[in-house]
Amino acid sequence: MLKKKGRSTAVFDNVNVISSASFGGKKESEGPLGKYIDFTTEDAMYGEKSWEKAEIKFFREASKLAITKADISQSDVDYAFAGDLLNQCGASAYGMRDLDIPFFGIYGACSTFGESLSLGAMAIDGKFAENVLCTAGSHFCAAEKQFRFPLELGTQRPPSATWTVTGAGSCILSSNGNGPRITEVTTGKVVDMGVKDAANMGAAMAPAAAEAIYSHFLDTGRKTNYYDCVATGDLGEVGRELLKHLLAEKGLYFENNLTDCGIEMFDKESQDTHCGGSGCACSAVAFCAYFYKMLCEGKIKKMLLIPTGALMNTTASQQGESIPSIAHAIAFEARC
Amino acid sequence: MLKKKGRSTAVFDNVNVISSASFGGKKESEGPLGKYIDFTTEDAMYGEKSWEKAEIKFFREASKLAITKADISQSDVDYAFAGDLLNQCGASAYGMRDLDIPFFGIYGACSTFGESLSLGAMAIDGKFAENVLCTAGSHFCAAEKQFRFPLELGTQRPPSATWTVTGAGSCILSSNGNGPRITEVTTGKVVDMGVKDAANMGAAMAPAAAEAIYSHFLDTGRKTNYYDCVATGDLGEVGRELLKHLLAEKGLYFENNLTDCGIEMFDKESQDTHCGGSGCACSAVAFCAYFYKMLCEGKIKKMLLIPTGALMNTTASQQGESIPSIAHAIAFEARC
Repeated sequence: MLKKKGRSTAVFDNVNVISSASFGGKKESEGPLGKYIDFTTEDAMYGEKSWEKAEIKFFREASKLAITKADISQSDVDYAFAGDLLNQCGASAYGMRDLDIPFFGIYGACSTFGESLSLGAMAIDGKFAENVLCTAGSHFCAAEKQFRFPLELGTQRPPSATWTVTGAGSCILSSNGNGPRITEVTTGKVVDMGVKDAANMGAAMAPAAAEAIYSHFLDTGRKTNYYDCVATGDLGEVGRELLKHLLAEKGLYFENNLTDCGIEMFDKESQDTHCGGSGCACSAVAFCAYFYKMLCEGKIKKMLLIPTGALMNTTASQQGESIPSIAHAIAFEARC
Repeated sequence: MLKKKGRSTAVFDNVNVISSASFGGKKESEGPLGKYIDFTTEDAMYGEKSWEKAEIKFFREASKLAITKADISQSDVDYAFAGDLLNQCGASAYGMRDLDIPFFGIYGACSTFGESLSLGAMAIDGKFAENVLCTAGSHFCAAEKQFRFPLELGTQRPPSATWTVTGAGSCILSSNGNGPRITEVTTGKVVDMGVKDAANMGAAMAPAAAEAIYSHFLDTGRKTNYYDCVATGDLGEVGRELLKHLLAEKGLYFENNLTDCGIEMFDKESQDTHCGGSGCACSAVAFCAYFYKMLCEGKIKKMLLIPTGALMNTTASQQGESIPSIAHAIAFEARC
């Protein structure tokens, strides 16, 4: 008997999120969620010599803090599932170098945190692990340099652009202990509706988010008001509007329970971030800093988190390819 | 009760490799394993307009053929676990776009095939899936361009260099059906011994291979002659010699059962490939084309495959970083 509902939803009996840790940069500290982030620094280099090395350090420190807050040691962590935005997932590879933990590197662009929770939950509920580490991170400066333009050029950003979140979020999932439960995971397929504008990731990812959300409600048979909070990863304002249209076409309507981690992360008016936050750290930091605490305190009872990822690379874009995207839906339930 | 032995070895009751498919380029067709590869093409572009698009096509066609050979349809595949060498795992992202399968993107450099089998086996044995697709691929021309020098420069390769395998290998794992079983998986940690030479990946990866092999024999309590064949992924000749030294330091000695997929893939004398083959496709194609058939025919009864990956990126190398590596050990048993 498979532990599955419908085509793509895995069901878990006993997966608990027993700790979370969140790290962010200056802009994140000044945003609406800033006060919830465990550690922020004004230094974009975080004391290192490059943005990339700073991204590695955010990754490593968030992972270590999640382990410490779970009151376990590195040797108690059976597996780590982690990824980031640097080419060849460099932040996680170099970040994991100092941690003595069997490691699965994953890549789902900005959906990576959702993928890490999905695979971590399977490892625990499948009885291959007692504790797993799930981490994802990104860095605005490193991402702009790698995907778009060097910051030194001062390139103007179009209104549809989002702002890559600097920082990292990390969780420990466990078969023991308390904390919010992960009850289901709906795994996305690669969706490509032909969007080619790398400065409009929200439009590229909205169809993948719609697909994952629709599949989740189809597989579980739930109504859209089942969740107190349904939060996509980093669609931003343009992507969210498209998402609402796409969901309405499928007969799904949300009242006030639909939001987006990227929209929550920054204050558009005062922070000049245009459409909102993005990057692997967007859903990771928003969840680990804010939503996790709301679930622990019972202020949110049921939540669906849908990290969203745009899977292109610069070579593919230069060769005229469109942007394939993916999203995974993770269902949480508070204990209290 | 965890399905685990020791620190890092997961144990499976019922995971069967029910099909394999292998695709390769011209050089692969001319090597010792050429006659075992399902499909080879003399065209490095594989009918496409770029090497990257060819890599995507290899990935897609291998995945489709593995599904066809398993006598199932795409909708019977619960999850795909796949990755490749292009930045942001582009070959798998674009390759999966045409397949209607929930997708987990993974990145372990040239260890990716081992990681896909590991996670696929966990999904099946954890009862989250009946069938999973595991695919990994790479392309010599795309990899040289991305990681080292454009081919047009005609840069001379040092004797320690390996040759990235062009092609893709794909398997279907299932809880049903026949075929060789995956019995255990030992998951590697990130290991970095300080090697910085991007033209000597064998040296960078040998310590990770040694760590995974040592952990596997420690966790299982087996002797080194338990396996008919112990095959690392792509250490090549320099890396294999280092591996033997590192294993001897830990008290592990192999007689004639230790080989390397990269060494098996090409004929060093006639093919001018220096140390051997490498890339995600190296262990994937060697296993799917050759070792899988040997296991099916009972010519190999017990096998340990240890795909090896170098986790650096070019930015990290340019910033003076060394090359972190990882390896995963996958144990197979023939039915007959």
